[in-house]
Amino acid sequence: MKKTLIALAVLAASGAAMAQSSVTLYGVADMVLHKDKNASTKLTSGGVSTSRWGIKGEEDLGGGLKAGFLYEQAIALDNGAAGPGFDRQTYLSLSGGFGEIKLGKIWTAYDDIGGATDAAFNANVLGPVALIFQSQYEYTANPKNGFYYASPSFGGFSGAFSTNLREGVANSRVSAFHVKYEGGPLFVALGYQDDELTNEKYTRLGASYDLGVAKLLGTYGRAKNADVDEWSIGADVPVAPNLVVSVGYAQSKQDGGKAERGWSVAAAYALSKRTTAYAGFFDANAAAVNGRAGAPDSRFGVGLKHTF
Amino acid sequence: MKKTLIALAVLAASGAAMAQSSVTLYGVADMVLHKDKNASTKLTSGGVSTSRWGIKGEEDLGGGLKAGFLYEQAIALDNGAAGPGFDRQTYLSLSGGFGEIKLGKIWTAYDDIGGATDAAFNANVLGPVALIFQSQYEYTANPKNGFYYASPSFGGFSGAFSTNLREGVANSRVSAFHVKYEGGPLFVALGYQDDELTNEKYTRLGASYDLGVAKLLGTYGRAKNADVDEWSIGADVPVAPNLVVSVGYAQSKQDGGKAERGWSVAAAYALSKRTTAYAGFFDANAAAVNGRAGAPDSRFGVGLKHTF
Amino acid sequence: MKKTLIALAVLAASGAAMAQSSVTLYGVADMVLHKDKNASTKLTSGGVSTSRWGIKGEEDLGGGLKAGFLYEQAIALDNGAAGPGFDRQTYLSLSGGFGEIKLGKIWTAYDDIGGATDAAFNANVLGPVALIFQSQYEYTANPKNGFYYASPSFGGFSGAFSTNLREGVANSRVSAFHVKYEGGPLFVALGYQDDELTNEKYTRLGASYDLGVAKLLGTYGRAKNADVDEWSIGADVPVAPNLVVSVGYAQSKQDGGKAERGWSVAAAYALSKRTTAYAGFFDANAAAVNGRAGAPDSRFGVGLKHTF
Repeated sequence: MKKTLIALAVLAASGAAMAQSSVTLYGVADMVLHKDKNASTKLTSGGVSTSRWGIKGEEDLGGGLKAGFLYEQAIALDNGAAGPGFDRQTYLSLSGGFGEIKLGKIWTAYDDIGGATDAAFNANVLGPVALIFQSQYEYTANPKNGFYYASPSFGGFSGAFSTNLREGVANSRVSAFHVKYEGGPLFVALGYQDDELTNEKYTRLGASYDLGVAKLLGTYGRAKNADVDEWSIGADVPVAPNLVVSVGYAQSKQDGGKAERGWSVAAAYALSKRTTAYAGFFDANAAAVNGRAGAPDSRFGVGLKHTF
Repeated sequence: MKKTLIALAVLAASGAAMAQSSVTLYGVADMVLHKDKNASTKLTSGGVSTSRWGIKGEEDLGGGLKAGFLYEQAIALDNGAAGPGFDRQTYLSLSGGFGEIKLGKIWTAYDDIGGATDAAFNANVLGPVALIFQSQYEYTANPKNGFYYASPSFGGFSGAFSTNLREGVANSRVSAFHVKYEGGPLFVALGYQDDELTNEKYTRLGASYDLGVAKLLGTYGRAKNADVDEWSIGADVPVAPNLVVSVGYAQSKQDGGKAERGWSVAAAYALSKRTTAYAGFFDANAAAVNGRAGAPDSRFGVGLKHTF
Repeated sequence: MKKTLIALAVLAASGAAMAQSSVTLYGVADMVLHKDKNASTKLTSGGVSTSRWGIKGEEDLGGGLKAGFLYEQAIALDNGAAGPGFDRQTYLSLSGGFGEIKLGKIWTAYDDIGGATDAAFNANVLGPVALIFQSQYEYTANPKNGFYYASPSFGGFSGAFSTNLREGVANSRVSAFHVKYEGGPLFVALGYQDDELTNEKYTRLGASYDLGVAKLLGTYGRAKNADVDEWSIGADVPVAPNLVVSVGYAQSKQDGGKAERGWSVAAAYALSKRTTAYAGFFDANAAAVNGRAGAPDSRFGVGLKHTF
């Protein structure tokens, strides 16, 4: 007989004895079928979000304090490859009124805010920022031996800071922070990462404003040492109760170099709370982007994302 | 405190809120102790079925449509080896009145029907088909970048089709189908696989008929390019409420070559719904089979299979 | 929506249908921040216990007999590395009035009793036995192709025996046993391992006595072929309801060689039933221990251990 994990609603209903004890098995299964210019049709894992699975849990220590942990592994849904190890995140955490502290392999505070203001649902294979911004291909997302602190929200304002131990390895520190504001229709976030592993200092500023008929998106990024400036604009338009269409444009330009440019249009249809069908088109100015691994001249894709 | 997954029965009893949300942790733990002729005694994982674990889930999308996923990894219970990655299957699925579609790394439609009509419980280490049929050692079971469609049953008849994308790699397509009929005591299945990875075209026809005192089994297979014909016969005899004895014979012969032959007798005793103890004996004509990795001249084995 | 595993209490309350069906997801997330003499500060996984996750289950076969399985993998919480495979244990088990039998990759009967009488909570990074005893760095802990039998307790006395199949590989057998007594304040255990993989015969004798105000600990070990004698003493002192302070000393000496010595003091504060904060100091006579990988001259560490 097969076993099934039960929703938190049941846990809550079962009383205090169980509140001490919870492990959650979670993940994303996302696959896209896409045709790139001058390439064969491909089935690729993680069209919008990287396919993954993980284990996480939390324990109430009393006095508003909680201990927690998380282990998460990426998987390639098209061919079964996984890891190595829990390659996305592994951490211990303590949270309370003071915010949250994590220790381990953790997304940096700079990584946290990337994507929030990217058009085309920040899709790995279709997002203009994901495919055009040079910084997206380079920065260290989850250094090992890390520390992370996120503050609580103060009237909509919050911030986070992350760093890691070098443990005797020269130029292996990755320190970052972000500050952000969320209130009513407005979201603004500023992130910064001093990344010794890539010998670069990244800045990212993003904002969105929800007009109701459309949510406007804008992002600016800078890689200081390479003297690269990058920006994007876009809009998410809810055209029907379960359907959002998103359009966006992004550009990346090194000082004295030629601009790399791309734009996307994508649609996401929510089949349910946890499952979304999507389709989109991306086009770039070919000459410039050709040198960047993974980025197509143009691409059409259709996919399905399931969250569990 | 340890956590325990609860059966679907509880899920159903808990009402609609939970029907949206289910993840199942499942698997098989199977180990056999066997003595092969001229070899030392060995403890081997997967005597009947490959030991494994997996995560799977399903979400009701309404209107009879369901989205689902599955990640499954083989493990060697005797030494702890696993994978690499989720090496058995990884897929996204959509199912409904039209049948089921899967995308990812999936058993082929030809693989689906292998084993259903194999004597000795289709045991990896004892089944005559598993050990004698040359095609069993060769065919591609779960190609990457795959598509799979299974029809619903129409009056006992059903079918399935599978293929995959080459994604620019020459001779990497594996296309297959099966059709089958299940009704009363009769089961008949025909499968075919055009396998570019092994440069072979496999045909398999299997049938069983349940007389009550015994279930008769027959299988025919052909590998066209190698000009190999293979067949087996057998019977499963329920000798007591929890005890089945199975006998079988299999032969494989390349045109102009010498026949490779083997027979098995095995018994399976159900200790419970999920746990079975088994024992068996296999014997082959040594000269022919010696050239095939893994197949013994003769073997005695006793094992335990636990499904969770 | 995320799913949550429910405690055994609920399982029991849900009646017989579910008693057939249980899978448990479990593990340890333990991390320590430590500063060793002449080294940079490090974040290390498994300060007290190796970080891990696993799946296990049990099925009632009736008549007091149970079938079970366990798959367990080590993880490095500081960098996400895991395995390879389920590298700690993988086994099938049968248990009942006769005791428990396990088949697979299993901790030896000698390994079972190591640690029970080690000061400083048997901490990987702080325990005097863990850091000073040479045998701890060498012995085979979980050989593959293993058999294990543990007896039930007879008036406080119990024992276990383990061995494994060589499967044609010369000098790959690891046989071990232990006997122990637990009653009132007294614990005594004797273990022995004939380890072909390290060409050594290990003996370990451990005892503890709980005076209430302190639990006294003592351990003696011998590696026969290398002619090494090792011993340790210590005490666990419960200084407050949730706080235990432990002190210990250990020594290892090869016949004719110089003694290697170290001592530890550590404190463990239970934040809850499943989460413990700890801190400790270890110091060794540097010259001798320097030759042993992993052992510091001196170390200060502070950590957090969470069990799920």
